[in-house]
Amino acid sequence: MTEDSPTPVGSLLKEIHYPHQLRALPEELLPQVADEVRAYLIQHAARYGGHFAASLGVVELTVALHYVYQTPEDLLVWDVGHQAYGHKILTGRRSVFHTNRLKDGIAGFPKREESPYDTFGVGHSSTSVSAALGMVEALRHLGQSHRKVVAVIGDGALTAGLAYEGLNNVGALQPDLLIILNDNQMSIDPNVGAIKDYLAGITASRTYNRFREEIWKFLTRIQEKLGAPVRDYVARLEEMLTFLVSRPAVLFESLGLRYFGPVNGHDVRGLVSTLRDLRALPGPKLLHCRTVKGKGFPPAEKDQIKWHAPSFRFDPLTGAALEVPSMKPTPPRYQDVFGETIIELAEQDPTVVAVTPAMLSGSGLTKMHHLMPHRCYDVGIAEQHAVTFSAGLATQGMKVFCNIYSTFLQRAYDQVIHDVVLQKLPVIFCLDRAGAVGADGATHQGLYDIAYLRPLPHIILSAPLNESELRNLMYTALDTDRPFVIRYPRGNGVLIDWRTPLQKVSIGKGRLLREGEEVAILSYGHIGNEVLAACERLLEEGLFPAVYDLRFAKPLDEELLHEVAHRYRYIVTVEDGVRMGGVGSAVLEWLMDNGYRVPVRRLGAPDSILEHATQAEQYQLCGYDRGSIAEVVREAFRQSLPSRVWRS
Amino acid sequence: MTEDSPTPVGSLLKEIHYPHQLRALPEELLPQVADEVRAYLIQHAARYGGHFAASLGVVELTVALHYVYQTPEDLLVWDVGHQAYGHKILTGRRSVFHTNRLKDGIAGFPKREESPYDTFGVGHSSTSVSAALGMVEALRHLGQSHRKVVAVIGDGALTAGLAYEGLNNVGALQPDLLIILNDNQMSIDPNVGAIKDYLAGITASRTYNRFREEIWKFLTRIQEKLGAPVRDYVARLEEMLTFLVSRPAVLFESLGLRYFGPVNGHDVRGLVSTLRDLRALPGPKLLHCRTVKGKGFPPAEKDQIKWHAPSFRFDPLTGAALEVPSMKPTPPRYQDVFGETIIELAEQDPTVVAVTPAMLSGSGLTKMHHLMPHRCYDVGIAEQHAVTFSAGLATQGMKVFCNIYSTFLQRAYDQVIHDVVLQKLPVIFCLDRAGAVGADGATHQGLYDIAYLRPLPHIILSAPLNESELRNLMYTALDTDRPFVIRYPRGNGVLIDWRTPLQKVSIGKGRLLREGEEVAILSYGHIGNEVLAACERLLEEGLFPAVYDLRFAKPLDEELLHEVAHRYRYIVTVEDGVRMGGVGSAVLEWLMDNGYRVPVRRLGAPDSILEHATQAEQYQLCGYDRGSIAEVVREAFRQSLPSRVWRS
Repeated sequence: MTEDSPTPVGSLLKEIHYPHQLRALPEELLPQVADEVRAYLIQHAARYGGHFAASLGVVELTVALHYVYQTPEDLLVWDVGHQAYGHKILTGRRSVFHTNRLKDGIAGFPKREESPYDTFGVGHSSTSVSAALGMVEALRHLGQSHRKVVAVIGDGALTAGLAYEGLNNVGALQPDLLIILNDNQMSIDPNVGAIKDYLAGITASRTYNRFREEIWKFLTRIQEKLGAPVRDYVARLEEMLTFLVSRPAVLFESLGLRYFGPVNGHDVRGLVSTLRDLRALPGPKLLHCRTVKGKGFPPAEKDQIKWHAPSFRFDPLTGAALEVPSMKPTPPRYQDVFGETIIELAEQDPTVVAVTPAMLSGSGLTKMHHLMPHRCYDVGIAEQHAVTFSAGLATQGMKVFCNIYSTFLQRAYDQVIHDVVLQKLPVIFCLDRAGAVGADGATHQGLYDIAYLRPLPHIILSAPLNESELRNLMYTALDTDRPFVIRYPRGNGVLIDWRTPLQKVSIGKGRLLREGEEVAILSYGHIGNEVLAACERLLEEGLFPAVYDLRFAKPLDEELLHEVAHRYRYIVTVEDGVRMGGVGSAVLEWLMDNGYRVPVRRLGAPDSILEHATQAEQYQLCGYDRGSIAEVVREAFRQSLPSRVWRS
Repeated sequence: MTEDSPTPVGSLLKEIHYPHQLRALPEELLPQVADEVRAYLIQHAARYGGHFAASLGVVELTVALHYVYQTPEDLLVWDVGHQAYGHKILTGRRSVFHTNRLKDGIAGFPKREESPYDTFGVGHSSTSVSAALGMVEALRHLGQSHRKVVAVIGDGALTAGLAYEGLNNVGALQPDLLIILNDNQMSIDPNVGAIKDYLAGITASRTYNRFREEIWKFLTRIQEKLGAPVRDYVARLEEMLTFLVSRPAVLFESLGLRYFGPVNGHDVRGLVSTLRDLRALPGPKLLHCRTVKGKGFPPAEKDQIKWHAPSFRFDPLTGAALEVPSMKPTPPRYQDVFGETIIELAEQDPTVVAVTPAMLSGSGLTKMHHLMPHRCYDVGIAEQHAVTFSAGLATQGMKVFCNIYSTFLQRAYDQVIHDVVLQKLPVIFCLDRAGAVGADGATHQGLYDIAYLRPLPHIILSAPLNESELRNLMYTALDTDRPFVIRYPRGNGVLIDWRTPLQKVSIGKGRLLREGEEVAILSYGHIGNEVLAACERLLEEGLFPAVYDLRFAKPLDEELLHEVAHRYRYIVTVEDGVRMGGVGSAVLEWLMDNGYRVPVRRLGAPDSILEHATQAEQYQLCGYDRGSIAEVVREAFRQSLPSRVWRS
């Protein structure tokens, strides 16, 4: 593999392309390897950005795991994948690491297609225990139980129900599985929940834990030496001792796992020694590993939220941003418009509350959380609970803004249906990051929400064209008597003066954005700005399509659709979401049900997986950037002008 | 309210229509009330069936809760709702209880629209803690914290991640909330998982628990008497004592809840006394209540699976079935065809395994579980884990049949997308109870799966017309290199001789079932039998529509569609699922994308909530029973014959 990466590489790391090369080194060099990996990550992030702090926190763990376990024969399952950069550069991808998160480059998360060392694709949290359990069981069925499986899960990911379901099943099946709890007390934002306090409590009880660890080691050694005859005796002894000394670990022991730790996650040689012991110990066990997010880069250690995934170039020594921020005013991010507007609404109406599953900063709720902490609930990584909790709040008349990224609402789909929609509860869902999301790639695309929400009865689906519309839709939603969804994209809006007076919108009413003839473009949400830009180009060519902003995917504006179906020869629909079952399909269904036969061209994400790239590149890949829209409209004019039977 | 119910009513119960009448009774009469409620439930079930055993198990708890708490001012949140029959007959619905689960009658589960005593609609499990937490918080915001909130959750429901997410957030927010753990060691099937063993362990430690309870009571009394000055001191003392004596309860205490119990859930006076104490105690607390599913009806106590929801009339004294089973052979249930076929496949191929989230009997997997326990995984009520665990198994080459009811797959939607589809893993999903499900009603309808799965890339969606097709699709799926979904309805198939030789089916190919002219009917799955029956009627009228069995909703059979679009003047699509975004929409999309302009009438579930009724009634309500289909086809012939511009 050629060495293309422009990031400087230390002398040991230079020779390590794959873990077997790492494993050939003497143990005493591992601290240096870890330092070189860390230096590489800092240098890389300074130039390219990306998920940074989490990877810095597990450098030693990553080195130790690949050193002790025979990857890829042994299976290493990461959770979330924010922290897998070190893993990637030690498993054949250092030379292409500068393509991380870029179009056609490597993915920012572990990905099975990319490498046999990536055993399970991740991006959403809390999947590792379940996936790893499946692997252990499969290896058992296949007679390959000599191959070991390790799952690494963060303390944040542990608040999600999926992780608990996995642990509960691990306890029942008693597989030979090591679960490493990477405890840095952070998700993207500081971690919340009873589990967090519980884990903090464990750390406070170091004496107990050290004592317990000694006992386990002692007993394991006895058993190894004396074998079967003493096994029962040892087991009983263990049980008694557990009872006496295990208090801090009982949560996990209750679930049938042996608990070890907490250990210092930055002592690579200590980790190697512990992992060696644990690799030899059969059955399910949990190693509690304390780490510091951003470890080794002081600015990141100090402000872990800011450095979770820096999107700016910085000085690798000081952390100082290298680009001078532009003095030109830019439109705000949608998340910030949401964050400011909800405060305005909450100040006017004491029943307004916000709920977020561990996305305070990403959703723009940090300020509200600071100003009115009791009315802004961060429930941890727990999307299902976030929705059902919102439903509970709504039953008593609270006006709940439940802010969840489009991709994460997938995890609460049943709660949306069963707890909100079937009860027609007026929960307001603000779906941030709806549509193509850019560098986070396939796992985080917010492309499905329109299609999976549209078939639900009672639900109102809306999308703002711009910041002002977002504010108005939020304001309008306050009066709703049923579930109300507002979806908007990642990134910036289009208005400099966005803080417009709040105005009510008519539910289910779209609007004409631009008069025109022959061809009507029906757009939904922010992508309408691409449509308007496309029209600027077409104008120069003498083409004047009409542009309508549907604003609501449900209920559809039937008056508008009748008008469109009567007045134009060709319809183009545009949405930042999947074509199958989306807004375009809603229009098709409506036209057919109402006996219209206007040809419709639906623009939306095609039926394939949309990988990482910039958002603009993704619009292009999906065929709904301004250029592609213009081309489709040109073609529509060509087809509509001769009044012949239409056939694409 | 008139007394219409034909079920005999005891002398005390006769006078109790609402809880305030119950609360007017002296405490010593409560055992008799409980007995009368139990007798009523047995008499009722003997005649009408329904969810039975779970309700028998909580008779005393139900009486005690309504006696101590000021319902509906205090909010009582049931989980799953299987057990709410006692609650319903004590809260104004005894006189209409004979309409339970019938069309236009009361629902089998708590339902907000039905009664102010039903605080939260349920049907799917594990929602109560999250919903109740929302209610407590809402009451706090509204200045109504004097109103108390109680959530009743089963031990089975406790295995689901949502419950854990809720508990974790309860621990963090420390609301004034009582959670009652109704521990009967059963879901519909015996409960599984580490939690189950843990709870069993608690019960074994009665001494500890009695000791602890004494201490709590003592401390509460001290605090009440001496007030604020001793509060800190008492808190510290509590902490120390907890440390010493709380071992069995630590799982819950780890999560920040005070644990009480276990108590005998069939001692109504004991429950009243405990609940009174707990009602006065602020903060989050958990009461562990041991109950027996089917309590008081010996046959149900003995065979809890059979009596979960009997669907036969029986003698209320002996439990003997009253109807003599017909000697006429009937077609098998789809679930049994699945259950027999997977054994055949597993016997041939050692890599075949089955996964079910707590639906062994419902899915027809009991026999496989008995024959090859290690290859049939019941993971407990944990749909998310079931799917990600299946994905993990599939990564290593296992052939995994993940059997989940359509309605419950909603709870694993993100896992389907993120863990299976994005990785193109060949997990085989068998969606039982897909389509209209009958008496279980709105919460359990399997109407959405086609619409929410269709937009996912790579996925194969199929539905068998009959038992033989189900077998062939299962057999075909063994060779898949990607996610493969097979959906089939609740209830019986149509073949007596269903055990046909296994044959491979061409993926993405439909078939012509019946030649015809002018009008083509495209049906998907078992509902095609209604189509065929409709055609029998039409035949007599001299109408000969063609009938195609699409068999695959994805990929579509394009060859078949080209043929249909060319040969017929009118297309009718029929599916047992929502119209919006379903198979009919897929056909519309395809026709438009390919430049066809054939009119299409889509039959499917309308955009409203489909309530409980029989399955046949639901087909009719949705307009896709044989009669409605025939009427639509007649109309299509009327419209298609004069070759005019079509307009519905």
